Amino acid sequence: MTSALLSVDGERIAAAARRVMARCDELARVTATPGAIERVYLSAEHARVNRLAAEWMREVGMATHQDAAGNQVGRIERLTPAGSIDRDGPALMIGSHLDTVPDAGRFDGIVGVLMALEVVRLLRRPDAAGEASGVDLPFAIEVIAFSDEEGTRFGKALLGSSAVAGTWHDDWWDLEDESGTTLREAAREFGLDTGRIGEAARRPEELVGYLEAHIEQGPELDRRGEALAVVSSIASARRFQLIVEGEAAHAGGTPYDMRRDALLGASEAALAVERICRAEHHIIGTVGQLEAYPGAVNVVPGEAHLSLDLRGEFDGERDRVWQQIERDLDAIMGRRGLRWRAREVHSAPAVFCEPLLQDAVRTGIRSTLDPLRESADDPAVIFSRAGHDGMAIGAVTGVGMLFLRNPDGISHHPDEAVSGADVARGIQALAETVLQLAADRRAA
Amino acid sequence: MTSALLSVDGERIAAAARRVMARCDELARVTATPGAIERVYLSAEHARVNRLAAEWMREVGMATHQDAAGNQVGRIERLTPAGSIDRDGPALMIGSHLDTVPDAGRFDGIVGVLMALEVVRLLRRPDAAGEASGVDLPFAIEVIAFSDEEGTRFGKALLGSSAVAGTWHDDWWDLEDESGTTLREAAREFGLDTGRIGEAARRPEELVGYLEAHIEQGPELDRRGEALAVVSSIASARRFQLIVEGEAAHAGGTPYDMRRDALLGASEAALAVERICRAEHHIIGTVGQLEAYPGAVNVVPGEAHLSLDLRGEFDGERDRVWQQIERDLDAIMGRRGLRWRAREVHSAPAVFCEPLLQDAVRTGIRSTLDPLRESADDPAVIFSRAGHDGMAIGAVTGVGMLFLRNPDGISHHPDEAVSGADVARGIQALAETVLQLAADRRAA
Repeated sequence: MTSALLSVDGERIAAAARRVMARCDELARVTATPGAIERVYLSAEHARVNRLAAEWMREVGMATHQDAAGNQVGRIERLTPAGSIDRDGPALMIGSHLDTVPDAGRFDGIVGVLMALEVVRLLRRPDAAGEASGVDLPFAIEVIAFSDEEGTRFGKALLGSSAVAGTWHDDWWDLEDESGTTLREAAREFGLDTGRIGEAARRPEELVGYLEAHIEQGPELDRRGEALAVVSSIASARRFQLIVEGEAAHAGGTPYDMRRDALLGASEAALAVERICRAEHHIIGTVGQLEAYPGAVNVVPGEAHLSLDLRGEFDGERDRVWQQIERDLDAIMGRRGLRWRAREVHSAPAVFCEPLLQDAVRTGIRSTLDPLRESADDPAVIFSRAGHDGMAIGAVTGVGMLFLRNPDGISHHPDEAVSGADVARGIQALAETVLQLAADRRAA
Repeated sequence: MTSALLSVDGERIAAAARRVMARCDELARVTATPGAIERVYLSAEHARVNRLAAEWMREVGMATHQDAAGNQVGRIERLTPAGSIDRDGPALMIGSHLDTVPDAGRFDGIVGVLMALEVVRLLRRPDAAGEASGVDLPFAIEVIAFSDEEGTRFGKALLGSSAVAGTWHDDWWDLEDESGTTLREAAREFGLDTGRIGEAARRPEELVGYLEAHIEQGPELDRRGEALAVVSSIASARRFQLIVEGEAAHAGGTPYDMRRDALLGASEAALAVERICRAEHHIIGTVGQLEAYPGAVNVVPGEAHLSLDLRGEFDGERDRVWQQIERDLDAIMGRRGLRWRAREVHSAPAVFCEPLLQDAVRTGIRSTLDPLRESADDPAVIFSRAGHDGMAIGAVTGVGMLFLRNPDGISHHPDEAVSGADVARGIQALAETVLQLAADRRAA
């Protein structure tokens, strides 16, 4: 394995990783909830982290702007062979998001943005005049900090990356947060011009591709004892609202053989989802919400609502599991004299990472492996069960993703972790990925 | 079987039953929710039905007042052997409640108040001067329409009857309804003097006993093909709030063997309650509430709360079943890596109906049976799994109850029913019960 980066000494990469870890700590202090981490779209905390990110982008020689959707963007141009700055070329976009779920960890999204900045720091070179810097690559690099990936505030995820992908829907402006503030009002208060949202959209020809490093949000790498993985695809997901109908009845006077208890039907349904999905290693189903109505301590529930989140690597496998769940629910509800129905509230096909980008990420990871102790042939390849900005960006350009080991798979939780050593490996792998893409492009 | 009532012709009792049914319809139109029936404590609807009840009380010769807890009371005095009015004697109290659950039926409670008024109509006689009326019995009769039995508004049941029993707690004034209005504020707005709540309390020596007719709120009489039953006791009840704790985790990235899903533990718990209680014919357990936290579609629930309502005829049997549930929950939660705990929020020992009053009710029911077709020896005797005002009133005087057949056992529901024919039988039985108590008292 040879590359320009082999000339970078380990200490420089270790320092980059330490900076990433320290900045994760610094960003964690920008929170709406003292003692916890919470940064939602178009909040004061969003503005503060965008200002910090912009400052750090300029520090590595990038020109910065905040786009019409509140995404923070930095750009560093390519150097021509003569060493001058070329401002017209397409860009490789590298990034992730800075928003969080409530009571979040400090790495989900954030670490990917900060690692991208370190890649720029490693790759930038002074121009011939020594007055500016650029990257000695056949494309510019843009680092993007997406403004909304989690969807915490308005219940709709991927708002920032959808704007960049040009798939923004105007009816999203009417989405409301918990306090009844619309997205339109929040955007205006944040200082955005809602009429110019289209200007955030990028054209395919402006982009070489999109690269993202992210913690795994799962335990697979931790269990394998590996630091990094190539992501093959982002999960196919379907979400349903299930409604179980029985008959409300007096809790005292109604014997069991006359009850049509919707809550017991819903309980069996939740356990059936677990049983079916446990038997299918590639599909995971979660019931995150369950409510009984009328919800009185002394009334047999006449209705129950539950959510179902189904994820798998392949759409067909996921749909087959859903059909199995449907059959089991028919049997459960039939036995209990209940009716049930499902309303699909979300359906996203699996997004496959572009083969060329997957190969480049694989090469990047290989460059970090110790040939004496680790097999350089087989970096882990795993699919992401969690959603990512790449699901939206896939509409405008090819997507490649690199996963970092996430101890015990704990994420969306204050205990979420990643090690500095893995971040160092990740930075090197990401930089090597960029160089591999440059080599591919030069050869094409 | 002989009694004064045998001289009352069937047509007069049938007319009384028709009036009860028509008044149930009339009261059903007094509702906070158009198209449904909902009358809660200290509401405008409460005031309206009290005015109607007072009018109907005066129509049968009763003196009326609304007590300090908003109960509507009517009283008719006894006639001395000389035919004059005696205002100083103790009273037999007969009644039930006029408040409802949300989306209620039209008979629960209501029919018992209206039947009591018909009993007064059947028993009253003009005094010697022909200017007033009284009852030719060794006691006065009071008809009471309790203001709050269901506890719908403030989450605490039996408020009206507790005030009469003298077991009102001053901290109840701080109970809040859903909109944050305290019981104190609501009482003042209704026009009650909260400082005089003690005046609603009755002394034991003022009362001969308490009689109540009520629909069964269960299907036992319907299944037996019988119209009326003697109530032996009012269920022993315990209520718990169960809290299951696991760990919230990302729904996509967390494989099943790493999940500690509190909702699945709660679902198993609800099914275990059903399984254990089904095996115990005299105990009935209901999970009426279940909620998962954080309650997001894409988060494995880290905590779940569920309610448990346990009822049985005997306290010991009920407590033994609770211990079995505790053991099963320990096993379920242990297997799933969850913790659980229970907070007891209500505990009421079984209230046994007074033997003398049970005997009188039995005599009353026997008077309604057709000796050619029905066994007059064995009126049904059942215990009430539902709570009743008698649970509170039992603290101040003996309680007797009469149940009316409730088709399919549907109650707390718009389809709740009782037949006019059964109401007619019930009126006769209740009047005969009063006459039997009078005979008992004269003989004592």
